[in-house]
Amino acid sequence: MQVTGVSARDRSRPRDVDVSAATWFDDPVALAASSDIDVFVELIGGADGPAKTAVETALAAGKPVVTANKALIAKHGKALAALAESKGVPLLYEAAVMGGTPAVKMLREGLVGDRVTRVAGILNGTCNFILSEMEAREQPFAQVLADAQARGFAEADPTTDVGGFDAGHKIAILAALAFDAAPNFDAVEIEGIDRVDLIDIHLAHELGYRIKLIASASRQGEGASVRVRPGLVPLNHPLAQAGGALNALFIEGARIGRIFLQGPGAGAGPTAAAVAADLADLTAGVTRPVFQRPAGELDLLAAAAKGQRHERAYIRLMVKDRAGVLASITDALARSDVSIDSFLQRPAQASGVVPVVLTTHEASEGALQQAGEIIETLDTVLERPRIFRIEDV
Amino acid sequence: MQVTGVSARDRSRPRDVDVSAATWFDDPVALAASSDIDVFVELIGGADGPAKTAVETALAAGKPVVTANKALIAKHGKALAALAESKGVPLLYEAAVMGGTPAVKMLREGLVGDRVTRVAGILNGTCNFILSEMEAREQPFAQVLADAQARGFAEADPTTDVGGFDAGHKIAILAALAFDAAPNFDAVEIEGIDRVDLIDIHLAHELGYRIKLIASASRQGEGASVRVRPGLVPLNHPLAQAGGALNALFIEGARIGRIFLQGPGAGAGPTAAAVAADLADLTAGVTRPVFQRPAGELDLLAAAAKGQRHERAYIRLMVKDRAGVLASITDALARSDVSIDSFLQRPAQASGVVPVVLTTHEASEGALQQAGEIIETLDTVLERPRIFRIEDV
Repeated sequence: MQVTGVSARDRSRPRDVDVSAATWFDDPVALAASSDIDVFVELIGGADGPAKTAVETALAAGKPVVTANKALIAKHGKALAALAESKGVPLLYEAAVMGGTPAVKMLREGLVGDRVTRVAGILNGTCNFILSEMEAREQPFAQVLADAQARGFAEADPTTDVGGFDAGHKIAILAALAFDAAPNFDAVEIEGIDRVDLIDIHLAHELGYRIKLIASASRQGEGASVRVRPGLVPLNHPLAQAGGALNALFIEGARIGRIFLQGPGAGAGPTAAAVAADLADLTAGVTRPVFQRPAGELDLLAAAAKGQRHERAYIRLMVKDRAGVLASITDALARSDVSIDSFLQRPAQASGVVPVVLTTHEASEGALQQAGEIIETLDTVLERPRIFRIEDV
Repeated sequence: MQVTGVSARDRSRPRDVDVSAATWFDDPVALAASSDIDVFVELIGGADGPAKTAVETALAAGKPVVTANKALIAKHGKALAALAESKGVPLLYEAAVMGGTPAVKMLREGLVGDRVTRVAGILNGTCNFILSEMEAREQPFAQVLADAQARGFAEADPTTDVGGFDAGHKIAILAALAFDAAPNFDAVEIEGIDRVDLIDIHLAHELGYRIKLIASASRQGEGASVRVRPGLVPLNHPLAQAGGALNALFIEGARIGRIFLQGPGAGAGPTAAAVAADLADLTAGVTRPVFQRPAGELDLLAAAAKGQRHERAYIRLMVKDRAGVLASITDALARSDVSIDSFLQRPAQASGVVPVVLTTHEASEGALQQAGEIIETLDTVLERPRIFRIEDV
């Protein structure tokens, strides 16, 4: 196998690999259309723009494509699968999820003998790194993020990572493979880590939990509930112990029980290894569809009905140090049919503000939302309540 | 896909699945030779005897084989690969290692873009269960084993499991896939768990470790060091936390770093799921060799030179409660060039016997062996020393 052509934004940038023997293309779409290539490897990124045009061009020309582009597959997977299969060429994307840790292959091939019911884990290394550093260095989100950006661990525009969208792309892909459908990114419920304060990390720890950005997908009736959000995980749980930039994933199946997979989620080495594994699959002559069914039989993964799911929650409030405050909060919860499991009040801060945290028993999403809305209107509550789920993982 | 023929020892045994529509064969070899089958699935077990003859018969007749038989693949993998490839038919064995957790596929396909340097983990659920129960129930090995046998968790003849041979079969297969060779079971160094006493579990715990049966394979020069043995793992390490009958595996690669994989290692459901995944691979038209290279280019995995490896050890002795005993032990270690890292003496037992445990700094295998031999000859030392390695995992 030989690299015959290369395209990148900056030709003169120093590289670890000598690409001078390959033909240079300023335009990746021209490379994708070149008759000199047998396979097109796309590492540009972005759901639209040149990445999409180049991949479409290569597939339309009957060339197999290997990509690390999670946004592209999550948003346009169904259409690209149809194009690839109409041309009879593979479209492979192992590097799109968990870097060199072969989660895509595991779900696409290794577990097809089972009915997967749930996948849940940590899929964004940047968020995991930031949350781990906040805890280790006792520093607030903004400071850790700025430092991660300075060290190159976070993008200049961090929205895709810290807003949960990158993990959303990845869980959309894994959910599609787990539940025999096409990725449906628009149906992923996404909440990022930017509202996790240092005090939440401390209070969660006191309660026996660690806050992680959890991506999960569960079968619910005919559809699936697919989400990304900060959640509380018991301290002794493997997901709580996956620190730094690690990615980790649980897969649950009717026959296999629970499988746990952990590894570095990104980086040049792991990505290159995943791309190379896809190239090896190409040479082995695999003829699988792009997702679990042929594109013609593939529906977008249906979103489960919302509001009916039952969950336990962590609710953290900043309240005025005044008589009757707690009564008004507990009253709001009781009126919403949310019952309290534990309650923790911390000493008043210098400003006179009192941090209060409570955990609830299982309550419907609707009830929790209503409780949050009532509490937020209380004039003794000083900030928007932080409501995070206690993950049942 | 349809089950057309079935063979088992006892036709009348009650089964969860109705097999009355399939043709019954008293002889599995006759089933393997039958012209009515397209694929032969072997779940008999045993390296030789009917399992081997049936698999050879099916392959010779040009039929793909799917097997869960770790002993067969570990001992006869090279010859069977040559037979399968000469007939142009696949021989698949995902269920042979870690049950439904696709470790074989991960090494064979998912990580081929990297150079794997080491695999290490817990591959025998029965041993892991026994060690976990000894700790949880504070009961000695023999009692826990007898109970596991009564409950069907251990075989009537437990040698294959507790002697480390089953884990040896599995690590021979994983090592072959990791290091591009054929399995070489005869070169696996094997020590079982039958010499782990309850007191070792307690003392290891006091030192911050848990004893696990660790199967490992590391590249060493042109060959590999492949072993199964009880080893001490730090309590907070993922391998120490894989309790009960779980299996767990670390894979280290030059590019990917470390990947961790954990799941149920055996059982009807996981095994069936792994067999079904292999059958799905067959229908996808995969044309890979049985191991990483075509059989004609495949050598048995070479064993690394022994005696030169450096390791830390846990040495537990039962000594007489008498002056000068410790001096003679520390003298034996010093003469062997083994230096002591920590030392723990427990109160004398009612019999006047004193348990003593020490851990060493890194020393060569040869030095540790010599020290053990000298200590064993001391007349104040009452039992053969228990020397377990502190695993560097």
